[in-house]
Amino acid sequence: MQSEEKDALEISRSTSPLPEAGRSRAAIEAVTPEVDGGRFPIKRVVGERVEVEADVFADGHDAVRAELLYRRVGEVKWSRTPMVLGGNDRWRARFRVRELGRYAYTVEAWVDPFLTWRRDLKKRVNAGQDVAMDLRIGAQILRELARGELAQWIELLEGERGTRDEREAAALGEELGAAVEQIAVPHHPTRYGQELEVVVDPVLARFGAWYELFPRSAGEPGTHGTFRDVEKRLPYVSELGFDVLYLPPIHPIGRAFRKGPNNTLTPGPDDPGSPWAIGSDEGGHTAIHAELGTLEDFHSLVRVASEHGIALALDIAFQTSPDHPWVREHPEWFRARPDGSIQYAENPPKKYQDIYPLDFETEDWRALWAALLDVFLYWAEQGVTVFRVDNPHTKSLAFWEWCLNEVKRAHPEAIFLSEAFTRPKVMRRLAKAGFSQSYTYFPWRVDKEGLTDYLTELTQTPVREYMRANQWPNTPDILTEYLQTGGRSAFVIRLVLAATLGASYGIYGPAFELCEDRPLRDGSEEYHDSEKYQLRAWDLDAPHSLRHVVQRMNRVRRENRALQSDRSLRFHEIENDRMLCYSKSDEDSENVILVVVNLDPHHRQSGWLWLDLHALGLATHETFQVHDQVSEARFLWKGESNFVELDPAIMPAHVFRLRKRVRTETDFEYFA
Amino acid sequence: MQSEEKDALEISRSTSPLPEAGRSRAAIEAVTPEVDGGRFPIKRVVGERVEVEADVFADGHDAVRAELLYRRVGEVKWSRTPMVLGGNDRWRARFRVRELGRYAYTVEAWVDPFLTWRRDLKKRVNAGQDVAMDLRIGAQILRELARGELAQWIELLEGERGTRDEREAAALGEELGAAVEQIAVPHHPTRYGQELEVVVDPVLARFGAWYELFPRSAGEPGTHGTFRDVEKRLPYVSELGFDVLYLPPIHPIGRAFRKGPNNTLTPGPDDPGSPWAIGSDEGGHTAIHAELGTLEDFHSLVRVASEHGIALALDIAFQTSPDHPWVREHPEWFRARPDGSIQYAENPPKKYQDIYPLDFETEDWRALWAALLDVFLYWAEQGVTVFRVDNPHTKSLAFWEWCLNEVKRAHPEAIFLSEAFTRPKVMRRLAKAGFSQSYTYFPWRVDKEGLTDYLTELTQTPVREYMRANQWPNTPDILTEYLQTGGRSAFVIRLVLAATLGASYGIYGPAFELCEDRPLRDGSEEYHDSEKYQLRAWDLDAPHSLRHVVQRMNRVRRENRALQSDRSLRFHEIENDRMLCYSKSDEDSENVILVVVNLDPHHRQSGWLWLDLHALGLATHETFQVHDQVSEARFLWKGESNFVELDPAIMPAHVFRLRKRVRTETDFEYFA
Repeated sequence: MQSEEKDALEISRSTSPLPEAGRSRAAIEAVTPEVDGGRFPIKRVVGERVEVEADVFADGHDAVRAELLYRRVGEVKWSRTPMVLGGNDRWRARFRVRELGRYAYTVEAWVDPFLTWRRDLKKRVNAGQDVAMDLRIGAQILRELARGELAQWIELLEGERGTRDEREAAALGEELGAAVEQIAVPHHPTRYGQELEVVVDPVLARFGAWYELFPRSAGEPGTHGTFRDVEKRLPYVSELGFDVLYLPPIHPIGRAFRKGPNNTLTPGPDDPGSPWAIGSDEGGHTAIHAELGTLEDFHSLVRVASEHGIALALDIAFQTSPDHPWVREHPEWFRARPDGSIQYAENPPKKYQDIYPLDFETEDWRALWAALLDVFLYWAEQGVTVFRVDNPHTKSLAFWEWCLNEVKRAHPEAIFLSEAFTRPKVMRRLAKAGFSQSYTYFPWRVDKEGLTDYLTELTQTPVREYMRANQWPNTPDILTEYLQTGGRSAFVIRLVLAATLGASYGIYGPAFELCEDRPLRDGSEEYHDSEKYQLRAWDLDAPHSLRHVVQRMNRVRRENRALQSDRSLRFHEIENDRMLCYSKSDEDSENVILVVVNLDPHHRQSGWLWLDLHALGLATHETFQVHDQVSEARFLWKGESNFVELDPAIMPAHVFRLRKRVRTETDFEYFA
Repeated sequence: MQSEEKDALEISRSTSPLPEAGRSRAAIEAVTPEVDGGRFPIKRVVGERVEVEADVFADGHDAVRAELLYRRVGEVKWSRTPMVLGGNDRWRARFRVRELGRYAYTVEAWVDPFLTWRRDLKKRVNAGQDVAMDLRIGAQILRELARGELAQWIELLEGERGTRDEREAAALGEELGAAVEQIAVPHHPTRYGQELEVVVDPVLARFGAWYELFPRSAGEPGTHGTFRDVEKRLPYVSELGFDVLYLPPIHPIGRAFRKGPNNTLTPGPDDPGSPWAIGSDEGGHTAIHAELGTLEDFHSLVRVASEHGIALALDIAFQTSPDHPWVREHPEWFRARPDGSIQYAENPPKKYQDIYPLDFETEDWRALWAALLDVFLYWAEQGVTVFRVDNPHTKSLAFWEWCLNEVKRAHPEAIFLSEAFTRPKVMRRLAKAGFSQSYTYFPWRVDKEGLTDYLTELTQTPVREYMRANQWPNTPDILTEYLQTGGRSAFVIRLVLAATLGASYGIYGPAFELCEDRPLRDGSEEYHDSEKYQLRAWDLDAPHSLRHVVQRMNRVRRENRALQSDRSLRFHEIENDRMLCYSKSDEDSENVILVVVNLDPHHRQSGWLWLDLHALGLATHETFQVHDQVSEARFLWKGESNFVELDPAIMPAHVFRLRKRVRTETDFEYFA
C-alpha cells in the first residue's frame, strides 16, 4: 500500500473512532413494548407482567443468547431472565412488576462460545467424526470462560482422564452445562441502546367502577347538599358496587358572569352557578365551597368513603372564574387584552366570559407550573390521590408531562383520568405524558362496526401499552342521542357494554341509573336542567331505577378476573349486525367471560354465533356450559356455532361465564 | 399551604428540573422515514425526493405550523420548507437530495399567534361581532412579533387610520400575511428530538443492470482468460446493455487444499481452484492473480469499461486460503486450535479446509478492521468503487457499519452489494449498516403469491427506505430448480421478471443467456462443471442465446423511467394463478409500464386482467393504448377489464408502455 493512502486512512480514522465494543457481535432491534423509541414509559399495575420481545441475532452461525434485564428505577443491580427464541429471530421473556413506581428494562445479547462448541460437537459426534481435537478446543474455551475454575472438566476434556467415550459423554452432558452456567459471564455482550421504563400504578388504575355525583344535589330536596349528605349517600354507592366516587369541583364558585339554569346568562340570586367556574373571594383551587362544608367535613368524607372501600376522586380543572384569587395575585398568569382586562375563554365566535384560561406562554410559567403542581400535592395531603382532570388538552402538554411525574414521585399511587374529548393523537399524547386513564369515544360508538374497530384499536394495538380506557356511557356533558331515544333498554345496553368492555368504567349518576334522557333541546347532548347549573332532586328508589342491574354488573366484574383487564378482549362473529359478541379471559385463561349484546334497544334480535374456540381455550366439538351471570340461566353449547336470541324488553345481553368441563359418563366413578 | 409541604415540594423540584423550553407547546411524533428511531440512515440517490411526514399538534385550538428542516451533514444552516397538514394531524413536506454524501433532516413546529388571531378574527367578522378590541389585540401580537417593524400595520389596527371596514379588510388581507411572513420567526418552537440522516448514493445504486463473468473463461478455448480478454468482451457486454461488469475475486488463489473440478478434493496440477480461496505467496486481497494480468492491465480494463459506460465491480470476500500472507504476518487474526494450527471454516459436520475465516473476536481486532478497510480503499484508488461483498453475514455487523461508512466518507460514490443469503432480519441489518444493495430471495420466488408478497414487502413497506434489492435470476452458486426444468422459456420469464421488478438486477453470464441448466446432480443448485472450479468455453453466438432478448430488455429499461425505480410497483389482479401483472411509473406518473407475465414456462396461459386504473392514472371507461416494448404490438384497451393470452414458446410476457391519450374525432382540427 502506498504511503499517501496510509495517510488518508489515518486522517479518516482520526475523525471516526472505532466503536468501543468492536467485538460485540450480537445485534438487538425492535424491542417491544417501546413507546416512541423509549421517549415515554409504558404502563402496568402492581402484579402485572411485562412481556418483552426483541429481534436478536449475530453474524455467522454461532449460538446466540439473550437476557431480559430489569430493575426498579434507582436500583443499581439488574435482575436478569433468559429470553427464549421464537420464530424469525424474535426472542421473548417477561417479568412481573411488584411495586408502585418506575421500573426499567432492557435487553442484552451475546454470542456464546461454549454453547456453540457443544452444539457443533454434538453434530460431529452424530456424524461419527473423530472429535479428539474438538474436545481439546472445548478445554480451551472453558479455560477462557472459567478464569481458574472448572479445572477437573478442563483436565477431562484435554484427555488426561477417562476413555474417549466418557469424555464425549461428559462434554455433552447436563452436568458440564450446569457448571458453566454457574460461572460464565456474558461474552462481549451487546446492550440495547435504550433503557425502557414502566410506570407501575395501583390496580385501581386498570380496574375500577367510577360513580360521579354532584354533592350539591345530595341533600334533602330544596337544600344545598353537603359533604355530610354525600357521606350518607356512601352506603348506596357502595351497595351498587362502585370503587371510586368522583366529585365535580368542590371549590368556591365565581360570581362574575355566573351562569343560570340551563346555561342561561341571567342567573337569579340563589342560582349556584357552575362548579367549573372556580374561585371567589373565599379562595381558589385549594379552597372548599362553603356550602359544601369544611375541610374537616371533607376529611371525614374521605375517611368514611375509604371505610366503604371507595376512593374519592376530585376534579382538577385548571381554569378560573374572574373572581379567583390568582387573578389578583398573579395577573401575569393570564393573557391581558389591550384595555388591561383579562382575556376570557373563547371558541370564536362563542365567548365564555365566566371562565379565564391560564396562559401557559406567560413569562412567569415556572411559577404557574409550580402553583398548579401544588394543587395536586395539596389534595394528596388531604388524602385524595385519584384525580379526574378537566380538559387537559387545552393545557400545555409539556406541563402535564412534568407535573404528573412530579406528583407520582411523591405519590406513586396517584391516578389521573384525562377528560380530553379531542383528536386521537392528542388524546394519546396525554396518555404518554402521564395520564393513567382516558375518557374515550365510547359514548358515540353505538354500532357493531364502530365498537369492534375502536375497542380493537384500544386493546389490541401498541396504544394499549400506555393508554388505558375508562368507558363512560354518560357524563354531565354527554347525554348521547342513543340514550335520548332508546329508553331504559338503551341504558342497560350501554351499562353492560361499558362494564364489560372496560375494566375501568364509570357512570354519571343518579342521572344514569334513573335513565335521565331529556336533552336541553333537540340535537343537543346537554341535559335539560343540567346539574352543572342547578340543584336536582333525584328519587333513588324510583321503580324504573337500574340500581339492581348496576349492582349486579359490578358484582359480576368483581367475581370475574376476566373483566378486570382489557388486554384479552376478542370479538366473535355473530350473524346479525345488531348483535355484538366478545370475550375476555384472565391472565391464565382460567376465567373466561363471553358477552352477547343486542345493540338494538327497540327490537328482539337473534343470530348464529361463530365462536373463536381457540381464543376461548376450547377444543372443536367440545361441549361446554355457558352460565349467564345476570339471569343465572345456563346453556349447554357445542362447537363454534350456537344460536342466541335477546329481547331488550327483558334483558338485552348475556354475560356468560364459561365452564369448559362438562361431566360425562366417563367421569362416573364406576365407568372404567 | 403548610410549610412541610412546601419543603417536600422544593425537594422534589430540586431533582426534576423544569424542561428548558417549557413554553413550547407543539408536539412532534412519528416522523417518517425513520429507521429504528434514527439509529440508522435512510437511503436515496442523487436527485431523488425525501417525503417526510410527522404527527404535529399542540394543546388547545391555536393554529399550528410545521417546517421540514434539512441540510447536508457538516453544514450549519438548515434549509426550511413548510409542511402541509393532511388528515388526522399528519403533516407532509419533501426535499430533494442533490449531492452525494449525507443529509440530515428534522421537523420544527410551533403555535402561531398571528395565524390564530387571523383565523379567529375571520370567524368573528363572519358572525358580525364588533371586532374593535380584536383588531387592537392584533396590533399587540404584531408588536411582539415584529420587533420594531410593521409600524404602519400596527397603527392601522390600533385604529389610528382608516374606517372600521378598511381595518377589518386589511387585517384579513393577503398583504399583511405576506408582510408578517417576511419577518416572523418561529414562536417558542419545538424541535423533533432526532436529526435523521439520508445517505445519498449515485443513481447506479438504484438503477443498473449487472453482468457477472469469470475472467478466466474469457480467453480462447483452452487458455486461461486475462483482463485483456475481458476487455475484448466489453463490446458484447455493452451491446447487451449492461451498466456494471462484476468479476469474482481476481486475487492469487491458494494452493493448500485447492478444489478440483466440480468441487472435488483431488485437483490436477493445472486445475485453477476457486477464486474465493484468496491468497498465496504472491499476495492477498490487494494483489492480482498473475494469470489474469498485471495491475496495468487491470487499470486498462477499468478505463476501457468506463469508455463503454460500464462500471467495473469487484468481489470482496473477507476470508483467506491457508497460503494468504496474513496467515503468516497476522496469525492472531485467525482462531488457533490447541495444536497451534489455524481453524478452517466449518459448518459442522462439513469442513472447508481450503478456507480460513477471520476471527472478528481477536484481541487485535482494531488492526484487523483497519486492514480490511484498506482493501476497499486500495481498490478505490485503482478506480473501482462498486463492490459485491461475499457473505457479509458471516462477518461482524459492527465492523460493516464502521467500515462501509469509512469508505463512503472518502468515496461517497461507493456502492456495496451485499451477498447475504440468510435470514430476513440479518439481511436487513446489513442494509441498515451501510450496504447499498442486497441480493434477495428472488431466485426462489417463482409463483404468483410468492412474488407478489415478497416484492410488496421490499418495495411498499418501510424496508424500502434502507434496503435496495438487486434481483438475480441466477448466480454461480444458484441454478434454481425452475431454471433447471423450465427450458429456454424459464430463462426468458426470469429475465423479464428480474429486469422489470428490479430497477437493479443482474445475471451471471454467459451461463444465463446461453440457458445453462445442468446441475451438479439432481437436487443440487450447483452448476455441473461450475466455473467456480474450472475454465469454461462459451459459444456466445449459439442460436439459442438470449442475447437479443437481454439486449431488448436493457434497452426498454433505459428508455422507460418507470423501470428505473421500485417504489411505484403495484400488482394488478389477473384471473389466472399462473399469470402475474404489475405496473411501475416514474415520479410524475408520465411514464407507465404495465407488465404481464406467464409464469408457466410450459403452457399457454390466458386470463382476464382487472387493472387498478387509479394506480395507472387512468379514468374509468377511458380508452388507452398499450404498446408492447418487446414485440412492438399495440392494443387498444378500455376500462379495468381486459383479456391477455401468452404463449411461452413465443414470448411469455408483455412489457407494455401505456399511452393514456388516444385521439378521437374531437381532436380533429375542424371538429368544433
